[in-house]
Amino acid sequence: MSIRIGIYGYGNLGRGVECAIRQNADMELVAVFTRRDPSTVSILTKTATVASASEVVSWKDRIDVMILCGGSATDLPGQTPELAKWFHVVDSFDTHAKIPEHFANVDAAAKASGKLGIISVGWDPGMFSLNRMYAGAILTSGKDYTFWGKGVSQGHSDAIRRIEGVKDAKQYTIPVEAALEAVRSGEEVALTTRQKHTRECFVVLEEGADAARVEQEIVTMPNYFADYDTVVHFISEEELKKNHSGIPHGGFVIRTGKTGWEEENKHVIEYRLQLDSNPEFTASVIVAYARAAARLAAEGQCGCRSVLDIAPAYLSAKTGEELRAELL
Amino acid sequence: MSIRIGIYGYGNLGRGVECAIRQNADMELVAVFTRRDPSTVSILTKTATVASASEVVSWKDRIDVMILCGGSATDLPGQTPELAKWFHVVDSFDTHAKIPEHFANVDAAAKASGKLGIISVGWDPGMFSLNRMYAGAILTSGKDYTFWGKGVSQGHSDAIRRIEGVKDAKQYTIPVEAALEAVRSGEEVALTTRQKHTRECFVVLEEGADAARVEQEIVTMPNYFADYDTVVHFISEEELKKNHSGIPHGGFVIRTGKTGWEEENKHVIEYRLQLDSNPEFTASVIVAYARAAARLAAEGQCGCRSVLDIAPAYLSAKTGEELRAELL
Repeated sequence: MSIRIGIYGYGNLGRGVECAIRQNADMELVAVFTRRDPSTVSILTKTATVASASEVVSWKDRIDVMILCGGSATDLPGQTPELAKWFHVVDSFDTHAKIPEHFANVDAAAKASGKLGIISVGWDPGMFSLNRMYAGAILTSGKDYTFWGKGVSQGHSDAIRRIEGVKDAKQYTIPVEAALEAVRSGEEVALTTRQKHTRECFVVLEEGADAARVEQEIVTMPNYFADYDTVVHFISEEELKKNHSGIPHGGFVIRTGKTGWEEENKHVIEYRLQLDSNPEFTASVIVAYARAAARLAAEGQCGCRSVLDIAPAYLSAKTGEELRAELL
Repeated sequence: MSIRIGIYGYGNLGRGVECAIRQNADMELVAVFTRRDPSTVSILTKTATVASASEVVSWKDRIDVMILCGGSATDLPGQTPELAKWFHVVDSFDTHAKIPEHFANVDAAAKASGKLGIISVGWDPGMFSLNRMYAGAILTSGKDYTFWGKGVSQGHSDAIRRIEGVKDAKQYTIPVEAALEAVRSGEEVALTTRQKHTRECFVVLEEGADAARVEQEIVTMPNYFADYDTVVHFISEEELKKNHSGIPHGGFVIRTGKTGWEEENKHVIEYRLQLDSNPEFTASVIVAYARAAARLAAEGQCGCRSVLDIAPAYLSAKTGEELRAELL
């Protein structure tokens, strides 16, 4: 029997989840829940229903796992614990500093209802967290480095768009190759913010805007750009659409460490992602953990989990025997 | 209270485990078991005992986890199930084709004794298996690639040493950079054995041996070298000792895959290891899983597990709260 999935919130991530479900034969998309008028929302899956978010509870017996696709700032802190009263839930909560609080809230709700919740699933937090965890447990004497990109930063793109005279903009975060090479040498290195990443901006100006003033405002913007080497390109709206409409991202988690009686040997563990579509990759991770949620729940488990708490084999549609024979 | 560890077999891997225990404050090496005369075996840990392998059962109440450091061909198939009668056990069994059988044997023994066993721990099998498993569960439509090196292949070095006229030899397996780059493009590529790896050999000849004949025997050797581009260097014994006495290794596990409604977006997941010391890194992985074995056993679990069956958090000395706050 298929695992019956609901999607709560239908933006880029929700559409990514819909696509990922199509690639997993043991899963079925049952319904997409939206706060918009359902008649205005068109989805790709012919066999699924678009329903109003306000009616979600009436679906409690028709959906096994609800995948929450809202934002971390205002949606998920309330939605995930609330929906954990009725469904097994998976979210991608990514406000790192508030994860312990969110975990506690989802844990309390899920324990009370006997449901299973998995939070903060994706790639950072998510696969990057897992890799930091494994690498740190293996090389206990060592140092972690995380690099992001090349990829689009939504927050930085938005910050540019708020500048007067800017019509549209896209910002790429780019890891500095020389910094990566220094880390890969295995020697511990101290890297400044400026040494690790550069920022590249593609900006469309409003008619008559002063390019020099806009560029100055970008490169000196505190927190967002002032601590980085930033390159600004002014381009046409057509060029932005044609060449910069994707949402690529990725990055590197590297741990270097030493072993041996006198710590005489160096080691480098590197995990790298190159993603054409940030939301679709995140969605693919989430769908694998939705399978884990359904399986853990079938074992009678409840409460909140993170990716750190879940044995890898739960993510796969294959049996333990198949995994041992094919992958180990 | 510390986790009390025994090491069964004291070669390169056993010494690596001894060093790794020193880097983990919650672990204590209690005894090293050897088939040699214990009085002839000198270990690094002043507080630990060297004991005869034949007396191991008498240590059953003084050791929590026994780490088996023998070979996969003749030692582990018998030793791991046998020792699982008395101890929680961890081994690095690496004969891929026989893992299902070994798993079944250890599982039966450990279930009968109420002990916990973890087999095939290290980097391949081990961390590489884990990465194949995670990446395959996320990118269900895609392809796996594994590259090894740059590193010393013991089997290939031994094969060269068996040639008449060869006094000593070391063989390095080297991944081909162009093949790695082709894979990283995200397009599925078909690579021949020759396209993926090259082999570099450093050979010391016996006095009067015919270098041309030895080189010809190496590069045409079936299975080992005939399918590869192989470079042979003849060097002095001193040079071999000075420049080629280390045991470095490493490699890459890469999965490329596609997402999107029409699979229009490409993704690349890459895991890379660069290891100065193959046995010490393997040992560091094993010691982290020894911690997991002790914890799983403390929860009352028994039977056999592989790295695929164990939640990452069990590997770390940190609590769930610490991990969520620091790593997620």
